[in-house]
Amino acid sequence: MDERVYDHAETLVDWSARVEEGDDVVLSVGPAAHDLAVAVAEALGERGANLLATYSSEELRRAYLRASEGEFEAPDHELALYEAADVVLSLGGGRNTNAMADVPGERRQSYRSARTDVREARYDTRWVSTYHPTRSLAQQADMAYEEYREFAYDAILRDWDSLADEMAEVKAVLDEGSEVRIESAGTDLTMSIEDRTAVNSAASVAYDSHNLPSGEVFTAPEATEGEVLFDIPMTIDGEAVKGVRLEFEDGEVVSHEADRGEDVIADLLETDEGARRLGELGIGMNRGIDRYTDTILFDEKMAETVHLALGRAYDACLPEGQSGNESAIHTDMLIDTSEDSVLEVDGEVVQRDGEFLL
Amino acid sequence: MDERVYDHAETLVDWSARVEEGDDVVLSVGPAAHDLAVAVAEALGERGANLLATYSSEELRRAYLRASEGEFEAPDHELALYEAADVVLSLGGGRNTNAMADVPGERRQSYRSARTDVREARYDTRWVSTYHPTRSLAQQADMAYEEYREFAYDAILRDWDSLADEMAEVKAVLDEGSEVRIESAGTDLTMSIEDRTAVNSAASVAYDSHNLPSGEVFTAPEATEGEVLFDIPMTIDGEAVKGVRLEFEDGEVVSHEADRGEDVIADLLETDEGARRLGELGIGMNRGIDRYTDTILFDEKMAETVHLALGRAYDACLPEGQSGNESAIHTDMLIDTSEDSVLEVDGEVVQRDGEFLL
Repeated sequence: MDERVYDHAETLVDWSARVEEGDDVVLSVGPAAHDLAVAVAEALGERGANLLATYSSEELRRAYLRASEGEFEAPDHELALYEAADVVLSLGGGRNTNAMADVPGERRQSYRSARTDVREARYDTRWVSTYHPTRSLAQQADMAYEEYREFAYDAILRDWDSLADEMAEVKAVLDEGSEVRIESAGTDLTMSIEDRTAVNSAASVAYDSHNLPSGEVFTAPEATEGEVLFDIPMTIDGEAVKGVRLEFEDGEVVSHEADRGEDVIADLLETDEGARRLGELGIGMNRGIDRYTDTILFDEKMAETVHLALGRAYDACLPEGQSGNESAIHTDMLIDTSEDSVLEVDGEVVQRDGEFLL
Repeated sequence: MDERVYDHAETLVDWSARVEEGDDVVLSVGPAAHDLAVAVAEALGERGANLLATYSSEELRRAYLRASEGEFEAPDHELALYEAADVVLSLGGGRNTNAMADVPGERRQSYRSARTDVREARYDTRWVSTYHPTRSLAQQADMAYEEYREFAYDAILRDWDSLADEMAEVKAVLDEGSEVRIESAGTDLTMSIEDRTAVNSAASVAYDSHNLPSGEVFTAPEATEGEVLFDIPMTIDGEAVKGVRLEFEDGEVVSHEADRGEDVIADLLETDEGARRLGELGIGMNRGIDRYTDTILFDEKMAETVHLALGRAYDACLPEGQSGNESAIHTDMLIDTSEDSVLEVDGEVVQRDGEFLL
């Protein structure tokens, strides 16, 4: 087996999830993630952790959801599993990124709603999500399989310690700052980050970071004003979206248009009240991710990009005991800041054309 | 997908496990059993049951066991899962029946021992084990893939109701009888079945039967006397075994030899005290199984064969509150009774040359 698969597994187990002897680990295995699962099982055996593998197949979920009558219960056995687990490692990677394409959104939503407790129990563990580079993800990224593997391992097998140090400087600036301004082609946006705490998302639970790869600094903005052009294309709810333009007044979206997928954006904004406000401002800092691959876990960490999410804010960014913007959605969209772009905090230029000036 | 995969799934869910609305179901999926898992997920969705899929890969287990230091704990999270589950459906089917070949027996044994509570919790559910016909099982059976699929579905997709009626007659004879005698080439054996209850193993939890396919009537004999030749070859602990001859006195094996694999048999008999006594006498009655395929779940149900197991007896065969022979092993071996063979109960011929005379 490719040595990088073992390196990926060790990074996940040691750096990301901080697995220790005696930990009860749930390993969620995508249908095409078998090789990575074998390498993770080996690492867990070496660390003396306990292993239960679950099978996370969208084809199974599709068959189940389509056959059901659309009423779901909280599954007690699954809840019991996650409540007793210390660590949950999700190894994404299927054979078709559109495996759920013909499941009605309403059906997915009611399944999701019934499983809130299960999801919360999972979030109470040291959980980490990663992807095994599969042919289907390569296809999604418009890349050859070997080319995609090079890309993915460049993103995953970083010197995380040193990236964490680098990101700590950006976090310090955001923590001290009150106002962020983003200027780029089609974008001139200001937002308040007063009293907010930024997360140094260094791909480890030790940093409140639950994705591998990660490599972003994010916070929860409010009172957004101005206009933004998201010039990096993406897939939202299975539909291609391009050139989204939003206008904000008093923190809320007051107008929207898009070169492609305008309906998808309109539907998103209609979800609930919080869907018209921002929940996240993130600055991508992973230089291993040098291109867009249409998988948000990778895209939002891309160096020389900034992303904003409509919807839910993360509590980690709010003062102790407070919650930020609430919504059933959290949808990230990206701005390319590599050219003719400026990121300012309290009037001081922090990043110009993708390069930090700290 | 082949219609028989859906038929298999429905038989498993409805006939075997009697799944009902609201049941919390654990679906254990072998790496090559994906298609059957999809069909079962659909059936569970239709019935309104809750589904959690686990991934049962011997390659994962091998990697984990070889990497570990050989000391295992009872995994709390897995125990919690099975204690909360109503039904456990195991879909066997991997890519290599020898995937665990280089894991030392001692390591497997200590892993097995640490998981006694998990196993017992699983046995407390409506559990059913089946196999998806895979290329690797075809290879094990010395058969072509399509040929094996025909074979497997013939065994699985029976008229179970009518086979249950047929087996009920054999059960009645065994329940009333006191002594069984088996005569065949190289075999002349008597054993007591006084006060024992036979199980009509009709592939359904409603019949205390937990395999699909099933199709056998079995009981727990004692006081075995005489000699037996197991003339159907098999694989035990990964080694080929052929022509095993045992001699019994006062219920215990007093001598053994084999044309092949004599060491394996010697090791088995040394396991513990109960390993030298019989735990099961079973009469195969599934006429869909017309040949030996080196997978015990199928072989032991083959019509015109009788099997005996060294080791543990099932409580279901004993009077209420009593336990039968105890042992860490339960190893079945088969006698071909299709020719020159007689099965007698209390001196009356019940089966001659594989045909019942009831």
